[in-house]
Amino acid sequence: MTFSVEFIAVGTELLLGQIVNTNASWIGSRLADAGLGHYRQTVIGDNFARLVDEIRAAAARSDAVILSGGLGPTQDDITREAMAAAADVELVRDDEYVSRLRAYWESRGRQMPESNLKQADHPVGSLLLDNPKGTAPGLRLDAHGAVLFAVPGVPAELYPMFDNQVLPALRELAGGLDGVMVSRVLRSWGESESRIGEMFDDIFHESTNPTVAFLASSGEIKVRLTAWAKTNEEAEALIAPLEATVRERLGPRIFGADEDTIEQVIYHLLRAKGWSLGTAESATGGMIAARLTSVPGCSDTFRGSVIAYQQDIKEGLLGVDPVTIAEHGVVSEAVAMEMAAGAAKTLGVDVAVSVTGSAGPDPQDKPAGTMVIGVHTPTGTSARMLKFPGDRERVRTYTTTAALHHLRLALQGEAQPQRWL
Amino acid sequence: MTFSVEFIAVGTELLLGQIVNTNASWIGSRLADAGLGHYRQTVIGDNFARLVDEIRAAAARSDAVILSGGLGPTQDDITREAMAAAADVELVRDDEYVSRLRAYWESRGRQMPESNLKQADHPVGSLLLDNPKGTAPGLRLDAHGAVLFAVPGVPAELYPMFDNQVLPALRELAGGLDGVMVSRVLRSWGESESRIGEMFDDIFHESTNPTVAFLASSGEIKVRLTAWAKTNEEAEALIAPLEATVRERLGPRIFGADEDTIEQVIYHLLRAKGWSLGTAESATGGMIAARLTSVPGCSDTFRGSVIAYQQDIKEGLLGVDPVTIAEHGVVSEAVAMEMAAGAAKTLGVDVAVSVTGSAGPDPQDKPAGTMVIGVHTPTGTSARMLKFPGDRERVRTYTTTAALHHLRLALQGEAQPQRWL
Repeated sequence: MTFSVEFIAVGTELLLGQIVNTNASWIGSRLADAGLGHYRQTVIGDNFARLVDEIRAAAARSDAVILSGGLGPTQDDITREAMAAAADVELVRDDEYVSRLRAYWESRGRQMPESNLKQADHPVGSLLLDNPKGTAPGLRLDAHGAVLFAVPGVPAELYPMFDNQVLPALRELAGGLDGVMVSRVLRSWGESESRIGEMFDDIFHESTNPTVAFLASSGEIKVRLTAWAKTNEEAEALIAPLEATVRERLGPRIFGADEDTIEQVIYHLLRAKGWSLGTAESATGGMIAARLTSVPGCSDTFRGSVIAYQQDIKEGLLGVDPVTIAEHGVVSEAVAMEMAAGAAKTLGVDVAVSVTGSAGPDPQDKPAGTMVIGVHTPTGTSARMLKFPGDRERVRTYTTTAALHHLRLALQGEAQPQRWL
Repeated sequence: MTFSVEFIAVGTELLLGQIVNTNASWIGSRLADAGLGHYRQTVIGDNFARLVDEIRAAAARSDAVILSGGLGPTQDDITREAMAAAADVELVRDDEYVSRLRAYWESRGRQMPESNLKQADHPVGSLLLDNPKGTAPGLRLDAHGAVLFAVPGVPAELYPMFDNQVLPALRELAGGLDGVMVSRVLRSWGESESRIGEMFDDIFHESTNPTVAFLASSGEIKVRLTAWAKTNEEAEALIAPLEATVRERLGPRIFGADEDTIEQVIYHLLRAKGWSLGTAESATGGMIAARLTSVPGCSDTFRGSVIAYQQDIKEGLLGVDPVTIAEHGVVSEAVAMEMAAGAAKTLGVDVAVSVTGSAGPDPQDKPAGTMVIGVHTPTGTSARMLKFPGDRERVRTYTTTAALHHLRLALQGEAQPQRWL
């Protein structure tokens, strides 16, 4: 039987929707990578009785239970207390941790708020997990046949504690595990999810190991192949022929695999050609540049951008001809091409991507959602007008993704795919 | 007893961490706004047996259950089938919806993939909820004393269906509700969460209605006051004196309330003064401009940006003196001030915010995490060097937030708060 791990996020702010549960997706991906079974995630508010009940139910269902959040110094942090109650033990204060807390605050030249001492409390029988990134230690505690882990809710503290202390412990506990799960994600852009579902209907029905799943995200569609086997090598051998089929059918729509991002793919294409990059953005307001500069080391290829929200900046800094704007409108292929070519000159770059458009809610000279992407490379300049549904942020996000893929296809010398959404 | 609504998100991609469960936070906030009880959220994978079990358990626990996801056209979409099984009824195909599906695809000039017909299936006794934004209708079905709602997982389809069809139905079902919940969120920047927890320790312990909670997010700290009462007016009267206390103790650290964002606050401050805005960004690579342009109508105040990733662009387009760079280093207050003043000139704006820094992982002339924010207004130019912990994206995100607050404080004519993180 697969060792199963359940995740409980603690916090009324999650139920009230004041923050997004990114810890759940992060922990889910880590458990999948480790080949551990993970079939359920729950969110419970800062309510003592409900949390105690849920910890007990989870401990009865699963081999291990991970709790995140509620370890902080404020009064609504109740995870320590609830864990102790669920395991029917008392809380004690750890004097050594008190000293370390005081030293931590002193080293930062600040006085420790006394409320932080609460973070040195822990259920009798529990192990403290070191927190090099913050003041709240994690906890490990046996309870009713399961092992409970509590980790901080702040991602910067949770991530290293989980990877360095919780995950190795889970793998050890799951020692009897007789197989590994390997996933390969193929990332595509240019076809709808339902069309891709149809293109792979045969594989979906015929293949049980690997399984096939489809997943849409901001215009990109991922095809995920997941195999179980005794070893990584065997799992990868099961995946290989299906991966070849998916790659053959989707052709240049596939831009990467697994953790590849379109930003990284562009970075490597530019490095291979020795070309530098810049952007000229209107409606996207810097979103394309922000994504391109998310890649560590991107200063090898990225030089800069002009964000030209107003027409006179398009003319003055990007050299767009006022006559072009008068004849074609500011949201036009002609203007997008002049912006891209002008950015190449102003910024001294080989390659430039541009956007002009109407993100909404108010229309420009074209209806809201009309966006034009231009690309300039040493081999030519092109532009494409697209229509995006949805609100301002959706239009801006999908346009940014489309602009990155337009750029990628130009760098790869590929014809544009037929559909652009 | 409070009418309670439970949320189940369906999708293996959520458990595998391939997407983030933003629907859970969105639905949570809508239920809170509607004064409906919401104590639990669950994620279940694309597994028929587990989903049927969870729907039954949720129906036994709660008055209403909302399911999102698994209504799409692909083979791993199983929510319709699981709802039917949980309610012990069969599935039937709706001929009218089949016609509407065909018409929808024809109106877009595209041929419908036949797999889409599956979306016209529904459990016997269920009501179809119209989906103007996509092809999958929602569902409403009575089961074992609870009411089940199924909505699409794609946010652009979920949001209008939930607001226009599900939420009114829930409010009607909860007719016996004898009170409303009102939350007021006060948004602050400039103090740590634990310090704010201490500042309000007395209120936290003495006040049960409203309750007080604290919440950190990318450097901003929210203080949430939540009151229950017979009417909105009574709840707001309970909140008012506490809100006044919080505002008095935090002073200029408070920048807004409820849904206010720092971008909107800046927009309104600029409008009031009739000033225009631009940015000059190095390490943040357009993130500040992207946030400033997220506000609809921002072209009233925002003119443009220069993203100067390379030194020669800082010199050429922003007029930074090479001697200043040689003397102080590119990551320095002097360069940040010249960038901001230069951007004001190049872009023709009254106000400019600038960033120069080392986001990491590799250091520039200062260690990774060293960032300098400059602000130029008609009344002067200032800069501040800050040190941020964490990885590249964390440093860039926190710097962007800090830059926006630096700008806001300058526009408000406020002294800078003592701490900048």
